[in-house]
Amino acid sequence: LDYQHVQVPFEITLWIMLASLAKIGFHLYNKLPSVVPESCLLIFVGLIMGGIIYGLNDKSPPVMDSDIFFLYLLPPIVLDAGYFMPSRPFFENIGTILLYAVVGTVWNVFGIGFSLYGICQVKSFHLQDVSLLHNLLFGSLIAAVDPVAVLAVFEEIHVNEKLHILVFGESLLNDAVTVVLYKLFRSFCEMPTIKSVDVFAGVGKFFVVGLGGVLVGLSFGMTAAFTTRFTKDIRVIEPLFVFLYSYLSYLTAEMFHLSGIVAIIACAMGMKRYVEANISLKSHTTVKYFMKMWSSVSDTLIFIFLGVSTIGENHEWNWPYICFTVIFCLIWRALGVLVLTFFVNKFHVNTITGKDQFIIAYGGLRGAICFSLVFLLPDFRRKKLFIAATTVVILFTVFIQGMTIRPLVDLLAVKRKRESAPTVGEQIHIRFLDHLLAGIEDISGHWGQYYWKDKLEYFNSKYLQKILLREYDQPKSSIVLLYEKLERKHAIELAEAGQLGHAPSHPSLLCSGFLCSNNDRTVMMDKKLEDTLNPDVLENIQEILARNLYRIRRTGPAYNRHTLPGETEPVEHAKEILILRHKSL
Amino acid sequence: LDYQHVQVPFEITLWIMLASLAKIGFHLYNKLPSVVPESCLLIFVGLIMGGIIYGLNDKSPPVMDSDIFFLYLLPPIVLDAGYFMPSRPFFENIGTILLYAVVGTVWNVFGIGFSLYGICQVKSFHLQDVSLLHNLLFGSLIAAVDPVAVLAVFEEIHVNEKLHILVFGESLLNDAVTVVLYKLFRSFCEMPTIKSVDVFAGVGKFFVVGLGGVLVGLSFGMTAAFTTRFTKDIRVIEPLFVFLYSYLSYLTAEMFHLSGIVAIIACAMGMKRYVEANISLKSHTTVKYFMKMWSSVSDTLIFIFLGVSTIGENHEWNWPYICFTVIFCLIWRALGVLVLTFFVNKFHVNTITGKDQFIIAYGGLRGAICFSLVFLLPDFRRKKLFIAATTVVILFTVFIQGMTIRPLVDLLAVKRKRESAPTVGEQIHIRFLDHLLAGIEDISGHWGQYYWKDKLEYFNSKYLQKILLREYDQPKSSIVLLYEKLERKHAIELAEAGQLGHAPSHPSLLCSGFLCSNNDRTVMMDKKLEDTLNPDVLENIQEILARNLYRIRRTGPAYNRHTLPGETEPVEHAKEILILRHKSL
Repeated sequence: LDYQHVQVPFEITLWIMLASLAKIGFHLYNKLPSVVPESCLLIFVGLIMGGIIYGLNDKSPPVMDSDIFFLYLLPPIVLDAGYFMPSRPFFENIGTILLYAVVGTVWNVFGIGFSLYGICQVKSFHLQDVSLLHNLLFGSLIAAVDPVAVLAVFEEIHVNEKLHILVFGESLLNDAVTVVLYKLFRSFCEMPTIKSVDVFAGVGKFFVVGLGGVLVGLSFGMTAAFTTRFTKDIRVIEPLFVFLYSYLSYLTAEMFHLSGIVAIIACAMGMKRYVEANISLKSHTTVKYFMKMWSSVSDTLIFIFLGVSTIGENHEWNWPYICFTVIFCLIWRALGVLVLTFFVNKFHVNTITGKDQFIIAYGGLRGAICFSLVFLLPDFRRKKLFIAATTVVILFTVFIQGMTIRPLVDLLAVKRKRESAPTVGEQIHIRFLDHLLAGIEDISGHWGQYYWKDKLEYFNSKYLQKILLREYDQPKSSIVLLYEKLERKHAIELAEAGQLGHAPSHPSLLCSGFLCSNNDRTVMMDKKLEDTLNPDVLENIQEILARNLYRIRRTGPAYNRHTLPGETEPVEHAKEILILRHKSL
Repeated sequence: LDYQHVQVPFEITLWIMLASLAKIGFHLYNKLPSVVPESCLLIFVGLIMGGIIYGLNDKSPPVMDSDIFFLYLLPPIVLDAGYFMPSRPFFENIGTILLYAVVGTVWNVFGIGFSLYGICQVKSFHLQDVSLLHNLLFGSLIAAVDPVAVLAVFEEIHVNEKLHILVFGESLLNDAVTVVLYKLFRSFCEMPTIKSVDVFAGVGKFFVVGLGGVLVGLSFGMTAAFTTRFTKDIRVIEPLFVFLYSYLSYLTAEMFHLSGIVAIIACAMGMKRYVEANISLKSHTTVKYFMKMWSSVSDTLIFIFLGVSTIGENHEWNWPYICFTVIFCLIWRALGVLVLTFFVNKFHVNTITGKDQFIIAYGGLRGAICFSLVFLLPDFRRKKLFIAATTVVILFTVFIQGMTIRPLVDLLAVKRKRESAPTVGEQIHIRFLDHLLAGIEDISGHWGQYYWKDKLEYFNSKYLQKILLREYDQPKSSIVLLYEKLERKHAIELAEAGQLGHAPSHPSLLCSGFLCSNNDRTVMMDKKLEDTLNPDVLENIQEILARNLYRIRRTGPAYNRHTLPGETEPVEHAKEILILRHKSL
């Protein structure tokens, strides 16, 4: 037996296997996931495992390594979040999100930090040795809402899109603030004296860390899109570039002390539309599936490790400090949301209701990021107290808040997500309104979001697409893409409906009816388009439709070792059948 | 700048990126890959990079780590090879393959070892200090044909299926022999005296290592199939299990000093049909694509690293030893193939022609496995000589043989692979003949391959499928699967043909013709089936056809966080359209 040799990969594989099996286990009983969020169950599994390890070895089980968390477990989740981010609601609410993420987080950090410092002054609590700076440092790591925890809970409760994007967007973008404040206070703790210059430098860093992250991300994203222009002959490595470039953007940002989370989100959002247009359909399925799979496994591992790391002897228990931490986290978040929303509602027609505000405040879950940051703290006397307080806050938010938020959403009758995707008609109308509003904004001299969006679209179609898209892939409007997708689904549906052909009704009549009404629909849609769009756009769309309608992108019959067997033959075969049938008519 | 922190993942990502970009580069010029095999070009890139590193640092560039090679780079390639192994030709020629792999490799090891020992006795060559055992050890690592190199070259030259499977199968299965002989001679080198017991133990180990590998692989494969029975509600992690279990089988086999390559191949071949039936279509696409992608990257990295590792100061040059190594490798392989094929042809009707024999002998490429093994040798005086000889043999076989084998195949007019996939009719006939031959073998009391295959199929459908397949997934015959696949392709083709609807010809007539002739074809196929199969099988197939024809497996509308957005809606949408059209008739 030679265990040493294979230990590292073997144990990693076993951990992943355990996580996947735990996931399968929960989903075997359909009732369980609908009552308890998966994250709670996974932490619970972790607690049990930690208990077993602790019981067997009689020493603390291994703690989740912060490096492993930040370098390997976090990126897949953030990439998945960024790639599947609904960009329209995100950019429509970007101002509000940034307000929550930046001002809100700063508010929470200082609020929690100062009030905990107040608690430390009470003599009977025996906490006088915790300095203001240490309290602020603790505040900076405990204040940030965790994207992983938020995602895990909010994707199960299906609140309306705006509410979801507000909480989730905040949890993602506050990373820049957390990084800056955490590093600032940590370096202050080690400095003998703090000059006012340092404080101003800290404020300046906000912009550097955030905007730098966006820049790094976008540049990698554009490079990724550019690279996929040249993968026509070697489809099989296309998915790789999506992962490689986004991971590189994360690592590069981390290397320059920028916000890796912001970078990877910018990279994913930037490259998505170009990459999707360049790569083959199967590559795209692989990208999507693999991203979901990877983030799902990462997220499972994080919660299990959280549970395992909780067990052990690295906690110092102090009732007042821990209880007041939980209370202050709740109070300051609630206050922050109330105050900020008051200002937001002043400037918006579409206001955030009281119910929504409650859910935003209540949805401020803490998770593995706080946990990793607290372990990264330099060693000092009260580190174990901070670890204990962080663990309690995480468990409190994930278990108590995570489990009660769904009943509360039901009870308050918070507006839910619409069930169906927008119809083609709706999409056309939304587009039309966008153009209209851009025009109005232009005339009235008000440079609002529609104006900028229009300019960006123009810049995109004029320059970016020409550089980043393969030449023969004509730019397709989202309507055409949706239409193609529906047609493809419909075609498969038709094949299924072949069963109807065996049914007693007249099959040939039925079939011809199918395709004729199909033509009718096209004509109808043309009519609609003519009514709503101006001639230029219309002509353009008609041209695109004429060129692309019904034509499905196919991988070329590449003759090299990395194509999948049978990828081209059946198509050829089907074509032959088609030609033969033609002749038979 | 904090490079230390992200160094490991950053450098790994960069290497993979380099490999992928190199791949894209070659395929940009269509002419290059058709003249020079990719493996040569990649080694060449590696040589240049190694030269640059050597020039800049003035010390040898890092050598490919054997652990990294065996634990991380080799498994994806072997998994890919095993998963996409055409099982029919493999099992039809299993006897010949095993003969080449076991007897042929032993023959080569001892042939090369003893003749090199002879060379060492020539005084003027200054090689008298290389003992017989060391020569045999060297023989054991240089004799084995390398699956990675063979795959890289043979997949580009498209020889006939039998020839391909003979060379490729040999290169995979000889791993068991190589492992045993290499470890045996290495331990002999360190022993003071060798008893005859040790030699017999070595012979016994062949069976343990080979059959043990098969057992480990099959047990993991069956577990994987069993696990995928329960992934219905959580489709997104299905692909993971294929990778996790096969990797675990490899690591477990390595841990117990069994053949990891044999294990992973047994695992992949064993689980394939069950996993494919259990997992969703998109998961399957992801599995296939990701496997191809991963193996392609691994293989690129291996060849680049081979090139990089060649440059440096760990070589000792000795003209006679190195030249004779190359010559003996060629001679002994040619002799071995000739002798073994003579016996094989005696027992087979379908003989291996002289041309095929030449290609088998000439296709004995050496690669990264030899290279890793030679670096794993314990340190002794002449290790650098062995490294030099191995490097030269690898470069000779990959460059000279790899580049000339395609022209030689053309020149000799070796039988090529058939271009098209077998038709449904052919498949039915092959199946019919299988049943017939199994019956004849049963009657004549000769337990040949058809008899065993029949028994295995019976056992499979009677027991294995019931345990390993999900209940509601009825067992599908390969004919039905193929038919479904063609129908699906055809459905998409139909959607494309929608363009014809706009053409001047009568669209409705054309369309109804399409689907009617479709029905005709079904009827025709039913006729064919009736003619060729016995009533029991026919009834069964008819039942399956009636139940499955046109029905495409779909992922259920799972309501949890890990499904892809829009996975279900369009289908529902398409259904609505369908229902509406029904009503409109």
